[in-house]
Amino acid sequence: MTVNAICYDDKPQIRKRLKKSFGKVCSAKMIKRKLPIVGWLPKYNVNTLVQDMIAGITVGLTAIPQGLAYAIIAGLSPEYGLYSGLVAGVVYTFFGSCKDITVGPTAIMAAIVAKFVAYSSDFAILASFLAGIVELLMGVLNFGFLVEFISGPVISGFTTAAVLQIASSQLKGLFGLRGSAGTYFAESAVSFVRNIKTTTLWDPILGFSTIVILLLLKKLGRGCSITGGVSEKIRCYVSLSRNAIVVVIGMLVAFIVKRTTGDEPVVLIGDIVKGLPTPKLPPFSTTVGNDSYIFGDMLQVFGPSSFVLPFVAILEAVAVAKSFADGVQVDANQEMIALGLCNIVSSFVSSMPTTGSFTKSALNRASGVKTPAGGIFNCLLIVLSVTLLASTFYYVPKASLAGLIITAMMSMVDYEIFGRLWVHSKRELCVLIVTIIMCLGVGLEYGIVTGILLDALFILYSKARPTVYVYSQKEPRADLVVITLNYNLSYCAAEHVRKSILVAAEGISSDSLIIIDGTNLRKIDSTIASTLATVANDVNNKICPCLFLNFDEKLSKMCTALKPQLADKFFCCKKLSDVADMYFKGV
Amino acid sequence: MTVNAICYDDKPQIRKRLKKSFGKVCSAKMIKRKLPIVGWLPKYNVNTLVQDMIAGITVGLTAIPQGLAYAIIAGLSPEYGLYSGLVAGVVYTFFGSCKDITVGPTAIMAAIVAKFVAYSSDFAILASFLAGIVELLMGVLNFGFLVEFISGPVISGFTTAAVLQIASSQLKGLFGLRGSAGTYFAESAVSFVRNIKTTTLWDPILGFSTIVILLLLKKLGRGCSITGGVSEKIRCYVSLSRNAIVVVIGMLVAFIVKRTTGDEPVVLIGDIVKGLPTPKLPPFSTTVGNDSYIFGDMLQVFGPSSFVLPFVAILEAVAVAKSFADGVQVDANQEMIALGLCNIVSSFVSSMPTTGSFTKSALNRASGVKTPAGGIFNCLLIVLSVTLLASTFYYVPKASLAGLIITAMMSMVDYEIFGRLWVHSKRELCVLIVTIIMCLGVGLEYGIVTGILLDALFILYSKARPTVYVYSQKEPRADLVVITLNYNLSYCAAEHVRKSILVAAEGISSDSLIIIDGTNLRKIDSTIASTLATVANDVNNKICPCLFLNFDEKLSKMCTALKPQLADKFFCCKKLSDVADMYFKGV
Repeated sequence: MTVNAICYDDKPQIRKRLKKSFGKVCSAKMIKRKLPIVGWLPKYNVNTLVQDMIAGITVGLTAIPQGLAYAIIAGLSPEYGLYSGLVAGVVYTFFGSCKDITVGPTAIMAAIVAKFVAYSSDFAILASFLAGIVELLMGVLNFGFLVEFISGPVISGFTTAAVLQIASSQLKGLFGLRGSAGTYFAESAVSFVRNIKTTTLWDPILGFSTIVILLLLKKLGRGCSITGGVSEKIRCYVSLSRNAIVVVIGMLVAFIVKRTTGDEPVVLIGDIVKGLPTPKLPPFSTTVGNDSYIFGDMLQVFGPSSFVLPFVAILEAVAVAKSFADGVQVDANQEMIALGLCNIVSSFVSSMPTTGSFTKSALNRASGVKTPAGGIFNCLLIVLSVTLLASTFYYVPKASLAGLIITAMMSMVDYEIFGRLWVHSKRELCVLIVTIIMCLGVGLEYGIVTGILLDALFILYSKARPTVYVYSQKEPRADLVVITLNYNLSYCAAEHVRKSILVAAEGISSDSLIIIDGTNLRKIDSTIASTLATVANDVNNKICPCLFLNFDEKLSKMCTALKPQLADKFFCCKKLSDVADMYFKGV
Repeated sequence: MTVNAICYDDKPQIRKRLKKSFGKVCSAKMIKRKLPIVGWLPKYNVNTLVQDMIAGITVGLTAIPQGLAYAIIAGLSPEYGLYSGLVAGVVYTFFGSCKDITVGPTAIMAAIVAKFVAYSSDFAILASFLAGIVELLMGVLNFGFLVEFISGPVISGFTTAAVLQIASSQLKGLFGLRGSAGTYFAESAVSFVRNIKTTTLWDPILGFSTIVILLLLKKLGRGCSITGGVSEKIRCYVSLSRNAIVVVIGMLVAFIVKRTTGDEPVVLIGDIVKGLPTPKLPPFSTTVGNDSYIFGDMLQVFGPSSFVLPFVAILEAVAVAKSFADGVQVDANQEMIALGLCNIVSSFVSSMPTTGSFTKSALNRASGVKTPAGGIFNCLLIVLSVTLLASTFYYVPKASLAGLIITAMMSMVDYEIFGRLWVHSKRELCVLIVTIIMCLGVGLEYGIVTGILLDALFILYSKARPTVYVYSQKEPRADLVVITLNYNLSYCAAEHVRKSILVAAEGISSDSLIIIDGTNLRKIDSTIASTLATVANDVNNKICPCLFLNFDEKLSKMCTALKPQLADKFFCCKKLSDVADMYFKGV
């Protein structure tokens, strides 16, 4: 029997972490790890190229309509959605560590920036640049662990609220309403009810048809794989391209109706700017109406979002990376670096903030992508569409895009978590619900922060109420009252431990022995040491002898440093009954 | 052998706590507990009366000079310090649960309000009222547990910083300097250096003599008790009255010099307002210069101090109560109620915020007090001094008061904690030093909040890095890789657990078995359950079978609710070697 023990230490090793961070950046070996393309490029061949190309084009067919749609969610002109996909894929090809991941605009990113785009579209581009800087820094300094402090229920509550908010903002497009869509859930809902009379006949018909067709095409692809026979392959590709298909159908219908009747019965996205954006510095100042905003003013407008936006971007990207990791470790820090660079470079071509997209990454994998180079072909398709197809996009009906977004959103909500938490943990259900309410009522960024703080408070409270077992045992020489302390005790548990010992000592006779059993005690801090020493000393002086059993040397030294007179009260023995004997021998 | 186990549960029982709080307030039995005087008054007799009277007067002899001195620290006119002791003792007699405690102004309370008194003295009185309300509410709602989140090092750092700040502000009085004393440490120090040239000969001589006499008188009383012989009794009382003695000496010297030479060689506190203050509502509005402040404006001036001040008051009072508890439980909530009422009532007679005073309580106990009624005699003496002796106080030298404060402060610093933490915990030493720096640099209230947050972050970080043991063991049927999870795991540990399992699974052969040992696992949350289920499923599909050992029913249900296909991977058995047999029998 061979036993090799590795112990993942639980000390908060901030110093080590910082050292490690700087060490990692500097070593030559690590440079290779920070540029994953070095790993796969030498093995690249025609076969991989073809597969990456097919996958890249399939993803592009979804990325184009989604890009237009997400720009609309953010309140931007549709072409910004396309600009956002222009270079991210190329940058990710060099720095990304996960072949499936597709970086691009996402609905949640769009929903968060919408509030700032209400000022000026420059805010979206600056947000991309700033988010990129924060992500890059966090990745370089190994601060990715911060994301670990967001629990499942908080992520789920945030996502649910974002989906509700985005879906409600799409009701306008789905029903072809006039008036504003609103950036908050309540605003959108009220605006929907107020403007429902302005609905036309054809917008909802087209919108709901889009949803039905998407669901049917999704069902068509179930169970078939691109490695199957010809008919299976066709079914599979049709299903994978469903987002492009519905939008093309909508465009064709709108185009034919316009050509034959000269009429526009559904709302179209209209003219979009043709051609590639001119590369330029992100806007560090802007004008809103007659007011000019310098960099500091713009930062003030972002407020807490300056941190929440990159945080959510990292969260989405890491979550997507983990889903496609197949039991292999994800280098979260490398993903953050890649994501940061994608956002920084993209902001030079007028992009809104981007992150790892779940839909597009799933599509990428299903299309059989082999390396991150798939992103390059996706980008090429977008370049083509911006330069050649821009005028065609005039005919894209807003109702088709709304239907596409709502269908994508429906699959993002984890409906089962409500029932699961109701059964297993009402406390977590409460965190989930508070997060949703705060996200919808006050704003997505405040909601997620509230959820994180609430979770942290619950952890602190549970640390303050550790389990303390108390039992009594009759021995020939004395009655023993044993108080068992376990694991790690922190300062906030001091009062609880003190109370437990005093309750145990209440009303017992002076010839009893109180034994504080530290057999399973691993770690205490100075506050606990001081409490134990003080209370044991008080009990010794006023009630009965108070002994310490099996405290390890470090812990006993922490106590005796405070009350040296306790030094003869520490005992180590295997059987509880021996303690009384050892004590009375010593007296 | 009889074993009775009581388990102090560690669930965060917010619901139970609130229920309990309201239940406690309403039950008739509790009313008695909330009015402790009902317990001791029936047993009160002449003997107890005499002892309480002696103690009350002894404490009063210190309370009067300290009151004058603390009012000066707060920047108030000296008579406010006396007003602050007028009714607190009487109120505490009814509601207080600890006979030794003396409620009155303290140096730390004075240092915190000093900043606001710079606006107007009305702020000190309103602070007393507001602190009283917050303390009362916290006591009634059983929210005293919040104080447990302040660790020993933070308390020590805060006290050290307060002592440095107070002592530095007393340098002006000690050296008889001109110019302002400053409310911050740096301000006071700079002001001291700048004005050192204005020092007179006699102020420092009187100040340092005061310190020397106080130390000698303290030494005189060491080892003697009021229950001893006549000479021992005299020595003891002289030592206990030392604060009054040095001030009287200073007064006499100043008085004689003035009468004989017509000169005032030392700075005196000067005229103070004679007579009892008129009872009136606390000032809910005030005027500063030409600006009038309504209640909202005053609250804004207080800022975070609105909570920090009552919090610190509770902390001081509870700490004092615990020191004198003699191994008996302190009802912290009752102490908060008593303290709250003391402050509310006192604010009607122009008092600054008060709390349990360590010096005066120790004096009270040393003087042999028997019940909280001692406070009444202390108050009577203060009433006498305000009405009859007010004009005499003209001759109190500021240098004597400065010497008195500095001597009291010196004993408050825990010098040894620095060395102790250096040996046992550098992390806590860092918290201590950050707290001191923030308290001195930014302000006492910000310093303590920084310390509390820093401690909380360390707890969260340690919760995110639990100990995970990994070891391998060769068995006839398979190589086992065992991953041991312990105690309670919270969401923030999810990534660490996931990584540990994936590292353990790296590079092992597909005929190995990975065993996640939950024998010592007590509690997981939904995030951990989801991580375990996902990673086990991934490992099962891609690497080798991943089994769960001795997970209790609740925990296994949480995992299988997410991945039902794992249901046949949970095993319960005592010996590790049986797991492989059981598994292969089932396959």
